[in-house]
Formats: sequence, C-alpha cells, structure tokens
Amino acid sequence: MPKPPLPPRLDAFLAKPNPSVIATVRPDGSPVTVATWYVWEGGRVLVNMDESRRRLEHMRANPNVSLTVMELANWSSHVSLQGRVVSLEEDPGLRDIDRISTHYTGKPYYLRDHRRYSAWIEVDRWHAWHPENI
Amino acid sequence: MPKPPLPPRLDAFLAKPNPSVIATVRPDGSPVTVATWYVWEGGRVLVNMDESRRRLEHMRANPNVSLTVMELANWSSHVSLQGRVVSLEEDPGLRDIDRISTHYTGKPYYLRDHRRYSAWIEVDRWHAWHPENI
Repeated sequence: MPKPPLPPRLDAFLAKPNPSVIATVRPDGSPVTVATWYVWEGGRVLVNMDESRRRLEHMRANPNVSLTVMELANWSSHVSLQGRVVSLEEDPGLRDIDRISTHYTGKPYYLRDHRRYSAWIEVDRWHAWHPENI
Repeated sequence: MPKPPLPPRLDAFLAKPNPSVIATVRPDGSPVTVATWYVWEGGRVLVNMDESRRRLEHMRANPNVSLTVMELANWSSHVSLQGRVVSLEEDPGLRDIDRISTHYTGKPYYLRDHRRYSAWIEVDRWHAWHPENI
C-alpha cells in the first residue's frame, strides 16, 4: 500500500463531507466498525467522540485505526486510510465537534451537554479503489 | 450490544444491496477496512474476495470481523455487526460472487479469470444507530 502524501485529487476528495467508517480494535483482538464524521486537514484525520464511547478506551489501548471514506454517489470508489491516533484529548468548548458538524450539516452540533473527545489520526498507508471515478 | 437475532425491520434492511465496510485485523494488531458487497442470509453475512486479497490471510489468522452497513440515502442510519468468519472456502464456479454481483448490479460478476473465496460470517453482537430512519 502507498504511503502519504496522497495525490492532490484524493486529497481534495477527502476534504469533502463524505460518508466514512472507522475501525478500532478491542483488547480481545476483535475489530469494531462504526460510521463516523471526520475532517481531513493537512494530511491528518480528525474524529470526535462522545465520552461514553467504548472506542475511546480501545484507542487508548491500541492506537491503530483504519478509516474507509466513500464517494456517496458511487461507493465502489473509496479510499482507505490506515494509521495511528497520535492525540486523544477532550474537546472542552465543543469547538472540534462544531467544526465537524458544520462541515457535514452546516450547523453546530445539536447536543451541548455531553463531554466529547477529539482524536487526530496520522496516516501510515492508504489505498484507493476506482480513484478514476473520484 | 444486543445479540442476534435482529428485529425484523433491521433484518429486512440488511437484505437490501446497501453500501458496507468490513474490518479485519492484521497479525500486528492493526485494523484494515475496505468497502465491500455482501449478502445477508438467515442471519449470516456472505462476502467474497479475490484470491490476491491480504484479508484472506488476516481472516485465517484472526476470524474476528466487523461490518458496518449504511443506508445510502441517510448514512447516519447504520447497523454494525460484529462476528466471526465460520467458513472460508473457494468459490470455484464463481456462483457466490455472481449471486452477490447480481444482488448489487443485476448482472454476474465481470471478471471470470480470477480465483475467488467466500467467507460466511456469524454475528455475535450488533448495534444500530438511528434505526428509526431505516
């Protein structure tokens, strides 16, 4: 699998509010996947989680993650990013989740009374399927 | 997370040709995600891979997988299935991939000269987000 940086066209694709799925690994070695919002910035991925999410613990114990980002109109075109969580910190003013929510919905995040955490992911490897359609 | 069987409405949702992403775990403990076609039958998931796919080896070494299935029109509605590969066998007549391809595209699979393998996945746990929109 290629290493970063990604070609400009894929970089531009990842900057859009695409559907994506993230995988973490539980302590017993089994993977967990969930659909997620993300923001792509400077070749890194920002995701944000409610404090209640188990995957916060999973990321602390095993920082390896994988994210698959799909083209909504033609999801056989997709990019997978394998990397590591390099920062996992509270989002005290909800600035990160508001930024991510605005990217996807045009509005700040609707829930204001939960603590949330932000993870920054550095990409080690990536692969694109049918990038000619992206 | 709930255990199977899934409620009838989610069972009916999974029977549609939805976008999905599967995660396997590499021997070094890092997850790998990729978009995939699947077929849902009798509470189990069928996926099919080209013989060249690394995730065949990953599944043999660690049969734990996770699949997230999304509603194309509203992908914040999604179902995640965590389970195990209970069967991993060659698809010699390409019957399985033709079945899966027909489910998604209405046509048999376009590549006829590659060996392929089928994996059946048994679901141990599942979770649905915004199932009211499914």
